[in-house]
This record gives sequence, structure tokens and C-alpha cells, in this order.
Amino acid sequence: MITYDLSTRGTQPKYEFLYRCIRADIRTGVIPGSSKLPSKRELAHHLNVSVSTIEQAYDLLVSEGYIQARPGSGFYVTPGKDEGTYQDTVQDEAQDEDDSIDFSSNRCSQMLFPADTWARLMRKTLSERDPELFETVPFNGLLRLRQAIAGYLYEFKGMKVRPECIIIGAGTEYLYGRLLQLFGDRRCIGIGEYGSVNLFNVSQGKSTLWDCFSVDKQGLRLDNLEGSPAEAIHVSPANHFPTGAVLSDERREQLIEWANERPERYIIEDDYDSELRYFGRSKPPLFTQDTGEKVIYLNTFSKTLVPSLRISYMVLPKTLMEIYRKQLSFFSCTVSSFEQLTLAEFIMGGYFERHIHRLRRYYSKQRAAFIDAIMASPLTSIATLDDMEVGTHLLMHVNTNLSDQEIAQAAQDKGLRLSMLSDYCIEQTVRNTHYAVINIASVESGKIDSMVGMLSEIFAEDIKRHQKTN
Amino acid sequence: MITYDLSTRGTQPKYEFLYRCIRADIRTGVIPGSSKLPSKRELAHHLNVSVSTIEQAYDLLVSEGYIQARPGSGFYVTPGKDEGTYQDTVQDEAQDEDDSIDFSSNRCSQMLFPADTWARLMRKTLSERDPELFETVPFNGLLRLRQAIAGYLYEFKGMKVRPECIIIGAGTEYLYGRLLQLFGDRRCIGIGEYGSVNLFNVSQGKSTLWDCFSVDKQGLRLDNLEGSPAEAIHVSPANHFPTGAVLSDERREQLIEWANERPERYIIEDDYDSELRYFGRSKPPLFTQDTGEKVIYLNTFSKTLVPSLRISYMVLPKTLMEIYRKQLSFFSCTVSSFEQLTLAEFIMGGYFERHIHRLRRYYSKQRAAFIDAIMASPLTSIATLDDMEVGTHLLMHVNTNLSDQEIAQAAQDKGLRLSMLSDYCIEQTVRNTHYAVINIASVESGKIDSMVGMLSEIFAEDIKRHQKTN
Repeated sequence: MITYDLSTRGTQPKYEFLYRCIRADIRTGVIPGSSKLPSKRELAHHLNVSVSTIEQAYDLLVSEGYIQARPGSGFYVTPGKDEGTYQDTVQDEAQDEDDSIDFSSNRCSQMLFPADTWARLMRKTLSERDPELFETVPFNGLLRLRQAIAGYLYEFKGMKVRPECIIIGAGTEYLYGRLLQLFGDRRCIGIGEYGSVNLFNVSQGKSTLWDCFSVDKQGLRLDNLEGSPAEAIHVSPANHFPTGAVLSDERREQLIEWANERPERYIIEDDYDSELRYFGRSKPPLFTQDTGEKVIYLNTFSKTLVPSLRISYMVLPKTLMEIYRKQLSFFSCTVSSFEQLTLAEFIMGGYFERHIHRLRRYYSKQRAAFIDAIMASPLTSIATLDDMEVGTHLLMHVNTNLSDQEIAQAAQDKGLRLSMLSDYCIEQTVRNTHYAVINIASVESGKIDSMVGMLSEIFAEDIKRHQKTN
Repeated sequence: MITYDLSTRGTQPKYEFLYRCIRADIRTGVIPGSSKLPSKRELAHHLNVSVSTIEQAYDLLVSEGYIQARPGSGFYVTPGKDEGTYQDTVQDEAQDEDDSIDFSSNRCSQMLFPADTWARLMRKTLSERDPELFETVPFNGLLRLRQAIAGYLYEFKGMKVRPECIIIGAGTEYLYGRLLQLFGDRRCIGIGEYGSVNLFNVSQGKSTLWDCFSVDKQGLRLDNLEGSPAEAIHVSPANHFPTGAVLSDERREQLIEWANERPERYIIEDDYDSELRYFGRSKPPLFTQDTGEKVIYLNTFSKTLVPSLRISYMVLPKTLMEIYRKQLSFFSCTVSSFEQLTLAEFIMGGYFERHIHRLRRYYSKQRAAFIDAIMASPLTSIATLDDMEVGTHLLMHVNTNLSDQEIAQAAQDKGLRLSMLSDYCIEQTVRNTHYAVINIASVESGKIDSMVGMLSEIFAEDIKRHQKTN
């Protein structure tokens, strides 16, 4: 119960002192909005003062609107009187409500998400009231969702996956965490100089070791593979984030061979975003080339559906899955049964497939619109676009005297959140790439021109200089 | 796409070979139930055979019911033909469907959970379609749920918590993981010889160090506290799992003093299950005695609601929260916005409070019934019950010649999953406690007598001996 030291009240009357204390606690959010205050009698007894003292204090608070009396129920703090919480609100919502154009966000996905269908399936799941809904979820997720995913992987990626080798988790970061734990102490993992920031971050406070590989237009460079202490290589063959580089066939084979050479070697294939390919057919995942139980496959629905859905999955080779079952199955599944059942319906009903097609059409339009707008702008004289056929990013190299930091700062001054390739680098050696990462999923088509306009302004000096010299 | 090497078919006709290959893949679950097969034309082209060959193979599969033709849509694998998946089903559901009495499960909670109310609130959340529903969730959870929790903590535990110091996560294990990461490399944590198994397990593959404290009827023993290298102490003052020991006032003060002596020292208070107290008022959490920002408070809804809901929370001191925000806020919140909003309604609507009261009434009846049944059984001559006033466990010490392992085995032979106190011990030094841990939440009241009967049979020898000697 709330406790105040009345001995510190000096000359103030008790009721006024208490009134001030409680008001302060309400304002600072220490006593949260909508919460119930102790009854006058309780509080009087607790603070060893007369009931009428509390009465006067509460009356003052009521008269100023800090608390409300609910007949027969007691006194409740008026919501919204909590300035602390109010600040908190602002801060929390800043990420979404912010008017500035955020090149690193993914706002479109919410616009395109078939919310009505999803809501309908949720209602269906709810009304059918599968007993599973309230039962303990198996550590690796509900069978129905794992079957749906296995079916999807087979149908769209040619992957032959057994449902019992799939682990459902709340987000790829979460699954990375489990995976690093499965690998155990002081294992060395090979990662790209950029594109693996999340995996790298997840390992904070863990004893994982790292070996950093450079990245080019064919993806991860493997020249130093044989000399590397790495026992596992993290790679996104279909779409190296954020450049969209596709791993070449030679490198795919080299990786598989390397992994097969030693029992402790593995390949971690993050297939994130591979669904969003615009031209030609995407190569099947590395997983399909794996004959030696060497590839660990991860993918997520948070990107292709909505960010608020935290559902990712990991496919483990049988041998690893057995170890996981023994060592880590005490970790309860982090995704609620309700959302797992809804997603299973969404996939099996063919809605996911349709949604992907819709996304693809939309993003390829966006992509074209961005490219046209940039080509039609003064930027052409100093900027070149990397031709990427997958994912939701465009990479724009700019011939500029500005440092990456200065570019990002200038963008921010215009209310534009712009990431540079160097922001995705793990080793902070790479400072100035002069590559801007443009997320085509960040804005509606209507805003593209004005945005490219802003970009041109940022590089106005460079454009002028270029015009002079030519 | 499915690929088979036709050169290995020997003398078989192609269509028959393909038929066998596909059938095998369906049976073993490699091609999952409900998944779509490639069109005849696609597969013919892919395998470089004639369409009629595929046609014959598919016809055979259809005629045997392995696949079904959906007009205008194509061929789909008949669900349930997948023996592999079928095994998986059995295995997965074993945990729930199992008929044996499982003293370590928590079956009652599902029975008592107000599923209708919950479903109604879910529908409400769904129909109101708060935009939040599909937006990115703040790393520490939705403000509305954090406010609801802050209100609950203040009202029922007298804790003054700011919503922005709360972190929502999918299960306590998950939050433990984040916490260990926040503590960073090679920090030493003090834990009870039993009761902290989960925290201990979570640390696998992390570089956390441990100092083990013995436990008695006043909870964690702190005789060696000053000499301990621990920088954080993990404790459950209200209910030391599974003994239900309540930390004495002296030890509470000792802990707080110890923590205040050095800036790097913290107390991790796991308040799990403290709501379920049967007699008297529970002491306020250690958190309320904390004046120095030293107590990290954790609690979960998975235990008091249903296990399928993975929602726990952690309250960090402001200073730690700032560090968390800087270092770990890249971890997306692992609980879906939908379930967070529903739970917020459930708490603010007063349903959670009512549910807790209901649980308390039910479990105190269960507890009494267990005690009566044991007292009325032959066990009385050799068994003594620890008097616990909180939680869902009874501790029964048995005067027996059997080892803890033999007891558990004998129970298993009767289809009874019985844990012994030694099962919860971290250091495997403690082998034979002769304490059986009886989970009063594991069975409906109807089954109690038959269960106690089984227990008596397990100890029949000891009971006989005791009767002879008296």
C-alpha cells in the first residue's frame, strides 16, 4: 500500500501533505492511471491517521480531477493524469506515428496486409475453439503450423522438410539465440562484413567467436574459407542483405563441399525476403543442395506479413534436432497457439501465396518508380543504382565529397531517415561506402518524387560540381 | 521441385518408378499432407520425361488415394497419408493426451481458465481493430499492457512501477535470457541449490558463472553471502520453488543491505506463483523494500492463466532499463500485439483478479483434500508433510529405504509421473532427499484418493516394516 512519512511534512497539515504526495505519485506515474486507491479506512489505518484526514486529501484530489470516486467501488486514478506515462506514450509511438520518411522502416507491409482475411481466420480459429488453443504448445510449435510450413517449403522452394525438424519461434533473433546456444561455448561463426548485424548483436554476452568475410556482387567472398577458423557460415544465398547480392553457383558448391569436409561444420542459411524476387526464377535454397545434413535453414513471416506478428522458423538437420530436443526443448515455444493456428489456416488456405504475389507486384512497381524518379532527377549525374532483383532495397552509390555520416545527418535534417551501407557493417573499419540504402517498402508511391527531390538537395553541391567539370 | 534420378530405376517403367518414389516421399512425410504437387507438364519438363509418363504415375497415386485431383487447381497430397507426420503427431501430443497422472504438469489451470471471457475479449480486441494490432510493437511491449500491469502491481502488491520500466516477453525463460545478456560476460549469479533450475538451464552456452546457496525453511541461506563472488542473487522470497519456503525478514534485509553495498550488485526477484497463497497476507515483494534501484522483478501469466499464453514481464530499475534500451532494444518484442491487448483488457476489466481468487479457492480445496487423503492413508506412518501456505506444491518427506530414483521409477511403473526434490537440484550432489514433490494442480479432485492409494503401494514395504517395528 502507498506509504508516506508524515514526519517529513513540516508545518503542513497532514491532509494537505498526503494530497501533495499522492498527486505527485499520480503525476509521475508512480501510481498508474486507472489503478484503484486503498479505501479511506485502510489507508487511515495504514498511515495511522484519522479517516477524515484521508477524506480531505481524497476530496482535494477528486476536486482537481486526479482521482474519481466510483460509487460502491472506491477511488480510482483518472487515466491521462500521469505525465510520466504520457511521455512514455509519446516516446513509444514515435516509431510509428513519426511523420518523417523512414527509409529503414517497412510501412507498406501494413498497408498491403490482408487484415480482413486475417481477422476472419482469427475469428474462425476462435469459434472452432480447438482444445489446442489453451494447451501447452510443444517446444517446437504446433504440428499444424509446422505441417503448413513444410507444405509451403516443398511447394514453393522444393525443400523436403519433415515437420518435426521445424522449430517455430517469436522472431529470427530469438531463433538465432537458441541456435548459438545449441552450438555451445566459444564456437566460431563466419559472417559477412555486413548483412549479419542481427546475428552479431544477438551474440552479445555470449562467448561466440566471429570470422568476418567480405562481400561482393556474388555475395559472401569465400577466398579465405579454408583458412578460416569458422565452424559455421552464416549466409543469405538468395538475397544478401542489404545489397541483394545472389550467391554464385561456384560459391554455393564451395560452401557445401567445405561443410561436408568436417562433422562439426554447418551452414546457416537465412532465406529472409527471398520471396520478393522480381525477375526470373530464384535459385532453390542452398538447403536443397544439401545431402549431408549440413544446412540450417531460417525464414520469417514478420517481414512478409506484418511486423507485429512475431513468427519465424528454423529447420534443423535431424542430427541437430535430436540434440536440440535433448538439450533445449525445456524452452517453451514463444509463439501463442492462437496465432500459430491462424497462420496455419492462412498458409493452407492459399492466402499466404496470394499475399506474396500481391507484395511482389506492388514492390516491383515501387522499385520501377524509384528507379525512374532517380534517373529523371539531377542525381543521375552523380549516382549509380545497383541492379537488384530481389528484396525491398535499392543500393545507390553516390559520387560525393560528403562522408556517410554527413549524408545521414543531412537527410535527418530534412526529416528523412536514411541508412548507409556502412551502417550495416560489423567491423567499424568500413566508414565511407557512399552507398545509400533505399528501402522501397518505406513509403507509398505518392511520396517517391518528393523524396528523390530531397535526396537531390542533399547532394546539391556534388551535382553542381559535376556540372561545372563537364 | 521434386527430383528423382530415373537412371536408377533399373528395369521398371518410368511411370511406375516415379509412382513409387512419390508414394515413398508421401508416406515418409517428405512430401507433406495437403501440399500441392507440380503440374504434370511442369514435372514432365523438369524430369525430362513425357507428360503421359507423369499422367500414369499421378493416376496410380490418385487411384490409391495418395493424392487428390482438384479440378482447375491441380493435384494435392491427401492429408493423413503421411506416416512420418502421423508419428510426429503422436509424439507431440503425448505430452498433453497422456492418460498417466502427471504430478509435474498443471492440467487444472486449463480447466479453470475463463476461456469464454478470454474469447469474448479477443473478439472485442479484434472488432475494435486498434491500429496497434498490426503495427510494430515497441521492444518492451505495448504501453496499454504495461500500464495494466503497473496498475495491477500497485493495487495488489503495493509496488510503484513505471510502465516504461516494464519489459514484456514470451515467457520467463526468454526474459532470463535477455537479463543474462544485459549482465554481460562472466558475471557471477547466486542461486539456490534448487528452485533456479530454469535460470540455470537458460545460461547454457553463456559464460555466466554460478554460486550455489543452500535452502532451508526460511528460503535461501545467506550465511556465506558476504564471501560469495556473486554480483546478483536470484531469489523467490514469497515462494521458494518447489518447497514454498518464505524468505525471513532478517534475510530480506540482509539481501537488500548486501545489494546496496556495491553498485554492481543486484537482486533478481522471481515472484512466480506468489498470487497463490492460502493463509494470511503474503509479504509485499522485496521490490517494495528496495530504495536503491537494486531489485529486478519478474513474474509470469503463463502459470496463473494458461500455459499456451506465453506472457511474462520483467521490471528493471531505471538505470538498468536505460542500458537495456541502448544495448538490447533491437530485440523485437516476442509477444504479439493481439494477445497483449487482450490481456490488458483482461487485467483492467478486473477479470484477472477474479480469476486469481477462483484459483486460490480451488487450490486451497485441492490442498486440503490431498492432505486429508494422505493423513487417512497408511502413508501417515512413514510420511510427513511440509506445511506450505503458498504455491501449488506439497512436499512429502518419506521415511523409506528406496532411493529417490527408485521411487520415481516405481511411480512411473504405475503410470504416475512423480518428481522428487532432488530432481530440482542443480548440483547433482544431493541424491536422496526422500522428498516427493506433489503438484496439487496436476489432477482433478476426483482422482486424488486413487493417487494417494498408488503412493501407498509404492511405499508398501516401508509401511509394513514400520508396522512390525511398532
